[in-house]
Amino acid sequence: MIKFKIILNILGKLLVGESFFLFISLLVSLIYQGNDTTAFLRAGLVTFAVGTFSYLLSKGVQKDLGKREGYIIVSLVWVVFSMFGCLPYLFSGAIPSVTDAFFETMSGFTTTGSSILNNIEELPHGILFWRSLTQWMGGMGIIVMFLAILPTLGIGGRELFVAEVPGPAPDKLTPRIKETARNLWGLYMLFTAIETILLYAGGMSFFDAINHSLTTMATGGYSTKQASVGFYTSPYIQYIIIFFMFVAGTNFTLSYGMITGRFTKVFKDEEFRFYTLVVLFFAFIITLGLIAAGNVTGEQAFRDALFTVVSIITTTGYATADYLLWSPFLGMLIFVLFFVGGSAGSTGGGVKVVRILLLFKNSFYELKRLVHPNAVIPIRYNSKVVDQRTVTNILAFFVFYILIFMLSAVLMSFWTPDIYSAFSAVATTLGNVGPGFGEIGPMENFHHLPDLAKWFLAFLMMLGRLELFTVLVLFSPSFWKH
Amino acid sequence: MIKFKIILNILGKLLVGESFFLFISLLVSLIYQGNDTTAFLRAGLVTFAVGTFSYLLSKGVQKDLGKREGYIIVSLVWVVFSMFGCLPYLFSGAIPSVTDAFFETMSGFTTTGSSILNNIEELPHGILFWRSLTQWMGGMGIIVMFLAILPTLGIGGRELFVAEVPGPAPDKLTPRIKETARNLWGLYMLFTAIETILLYAGGMSFFDAINHSLTTMATGGYSTKQASVGFYTSPYIQYIIIFFMFVAGTNFTLSYGMITGRFTKVFKDEEFRFYTLVVLFFAFIITLGLIAAGNVTGEQAFRDALFTVVSIITTTGYATADYLLWSPFLGMLIFVLFFVGGSAGSTGGGVKVVRILLLFKNSFYELKRLVHPNAVIPIRYNSKVVDQRTVTNILAFFVFYILIFMLSAVLMSFWTPDIYSAFSAVATTLGNVGPGFGEIGPMENFHHLPDLAKWFLAFLMMLGRLELFTVLVLFSPSFWKH
Repeated sequence: MIKFKIILNILGKLLVGESFFLFISLLVSLIYQGNDTTAFLRAGLVTFAVGTFSYLLSKGVQKDLGKREGYIIVSLVWVVFSMFGCLPYLFSGAIPSVTDAFFETMSGFTTTGSSILNNIEELPHGILFWRSLTQWMGGMGIIVMFLAILPTLGIGGRELFVAEVPGPAPDKLTPRIKETARNLWGLYMLFTAIETILLYAGGMSFFDAINHSLTTMATGGYSTKQASVGFYTSPYIQYIIIFFMFVAGTNFTLSYGMITGRFTKVFKDEEFRFYTLVVLFFAFIITLGLIAAGNVTGEQAFRDALFTVVSIITTTGYATADYLLWSPFLGMLIFVLFFVGGSAGSTGGGVKVVRILLLFKNSFYELKRLVHPNAVIPIRYNSKVVDQRTVTNILAFFVFYILIFMLSAVLMSFWTPDIYSAFSAVATTLGNVGPGFGEIGPMENFHHLPDLAKWFLAFLMMLGRLELFTVLVLFSPSFWKH
Repeated sequence: MIKFKIILNILGKLLVGESFFLFISLLVSLIYQGNDTTAFLRAGLVTFAVGTFSYLLSKGVQKDLGKREGYIIVSLVWVVFSMFGCLPYLFSGAIPSVTDAFFETMSGFTTTGSSILNNIEELPHGILFWRSLTQWMGGMGIIVMFLAILPTLGIGGRELFVAEVPGPAPDKLTPRIKETARNLWGLYMLFTAIETILLYAGGMSFFDAINHSLTTMATGGYSTKQASVGFYTSPYIQYIIIFFMFVAGTNFTLSYGMITGRFTKVFKDEEFRFYTLVVLFFAFIITLGLIAAGNVTGEQAFRDALFTVVSIITTTGYATADYLLWSPFLGMLIFVLFFVGGSAGSTGGGVKVVRILLLFKNSFYELKRLVHPNAVIPIRYNSKVVDQRTVTNILAFFVFYILIFMLSAVLMSFWTPDIYSAFSAVATTLGNVGPGFGEIGPMENFHHLPDLAKWFLAFLMMLGRLELFTVLVLFSPSFWKH
């Protein structure tokens, strides 16, 4: 039997937590005296009330959380948070349509960054801050955040953590989940603070600096400017953002290692090396391509190339250049990056670098095995043998990813003017990137899509953010059988 | 040490075999008194001479053929056959460019059916017949054909057979390779003969009937008409071709079973059921879509839909309707079929139905395993348990296929006007289908592509025809080490 009462209990607690962040946005609204103050007050109170009510309704429930309850909670929390998180948009009239508001909120929490807004600069400060905050909360993981903060989520925490941070397991920072969650969030806050200061020092307003820092570290990509980071022509600002996007796309365990002085471990990490290599290689080729095309000078070409590559591979989705105007070859390089994603244990989405690396390794070894069918040739990763179960799981994940990608594109093609836009919309939402190709390019948005398409894409964002299995398992009949 | 002498010896014998087919085309040319007679005489003699010379040069060589020699021979034979097979085009002036002639021949032998010709009806009969014959030879497999015919290839035959017919091993017809090869080719010839008679009875000229039968049974798709099968408006002819394409896309072992009276075994075969289901489901949806679009009547809509679905899933590539004019959704359904392909043990290319089926099964079981991590849940296929090694191999194959698809599309985008055409060109050649999307649609051809692109696509055809591993293993360094 699935224990629905404990699910209600924990979701209630989490909602109370969400209301806390809504009240922070209320403060921002008050400081800037926007017309969104009452919207935040109402949204915060509604969320707090529903959360408290759910919690009280299920008070005193036994707290032994199973695997299945974990999957349900971790999937549901994104839906529930988006349902309440879209209230400020609706109450303030910033986004009048329920579909659009839900889409924008889910795109925020999942750090996708696909937007339906095309009047960003007209919106009040509170709304813009909340929009960035949803990405920041979702970036390191909603559950991970509350595991770090709330003392009472403790029991069953491991089940929740594993369901929200699936991936090929990164080295745990410390053996205790709670301490891990705290260290991750501490680092995350530290980086956000440093980036804010550096952007502010570069001439950004404090408000824009904090918003961009929130969405950079989350690899989210929401900007307070309609023209995205392209609004800021300062190379300093662009390089700062490139640097922090890059860091946000690495495993936070490595950053922790750096801070505690274990440099060699970081530079010997295979995933980090591969990630750096891919970024530099793609940026190099694209720089050459842009210079050859003759529209931009050397430094600008390098900056545009590096910015776009890092923005896409980390699944952030900020734009400084419109890659739709590049040659098909350069555009194709960007498209390929949609399927790579950040490192395991980072805030980036997508297939994840370590999986791509192991897929290539396994393909290479598969050929070796053909030549020597009787030899046992294990795959090594960071000098350790990768067991066959992990390899099969990664292969299965990739196959799942591609099958879902294809089937979703079929469905999506109902609503797009061509096949190409259907593929691009699915690739960017499933990979939590943000912008796409065709009619949803980096200078365009998702406003014009039909409502049904938006709901479907919002679902894909969640599917991608939770790395497929956590959500899909809920659709398996055996999950619901005793 | 790789024994190059035996490779030379066998390739020599095979070339003598190829010259035999060139002389058959010479006969056709003589019958129709075309201007291509001397071209075939010269091509046949050159091929015969080179073959005999290679054979004599390596006479008396020890015939113990290893695995590695097998891979080399099976890969090389497609290149060598295409090199000599393009001579009639060059000598007759039908295709003046070496690149184009090689492309057309490789596209023939691999039964891809992508063409650079746009004056098909002006070509002499001998040339058209040779063009169809290349597909027919390649359809069941060049090596398999000679294993059936030549008594002296015997030793090491198993190595060659396995390298050319990789796939998830179909039930062997009989335990002996030679007998298997003979049975397969016997059936193949029988079906070709029956189709020829039926098409001729439907009003096709005898020449057109035999050519279309050769390329239907090979799932090749070369036609003697510029408008492909669309030239024949007779529903009877179109249904006959649909039927034989469908049969050519099934496992020939099943047809053998049908003939020897084992009906239940055929209808219980999971791959056959899935293949039939996919064909009917896609044809049904597309029929509805075409009727809704309102351009065609009921029967015509059904026929266009069924013809296109069967033509693409079997990787034949004949066209009666231009799917580029259909809605994005219907076009997307066709695009998805590019990645399915025929059944294992059929003449169809692509990923193969059984692999797709097992990928879906494994994905489903992967979810079950998540819910019950300690339970042993094996996958069953045709009531037998599929061992883990086979599952991993199929997963690895699909991952390889997708990785190669992506990397090839990156390269291809150098030469295409957009990303979309690059993907479509790679999908259709790697899958041995024929027509693509964008600038290489079913009513277009590959003529306008740059030479380098044509060589690259010809390589992809070979890679796809030999199901990746047989060719790729040659690029593995460990293959060449002692």
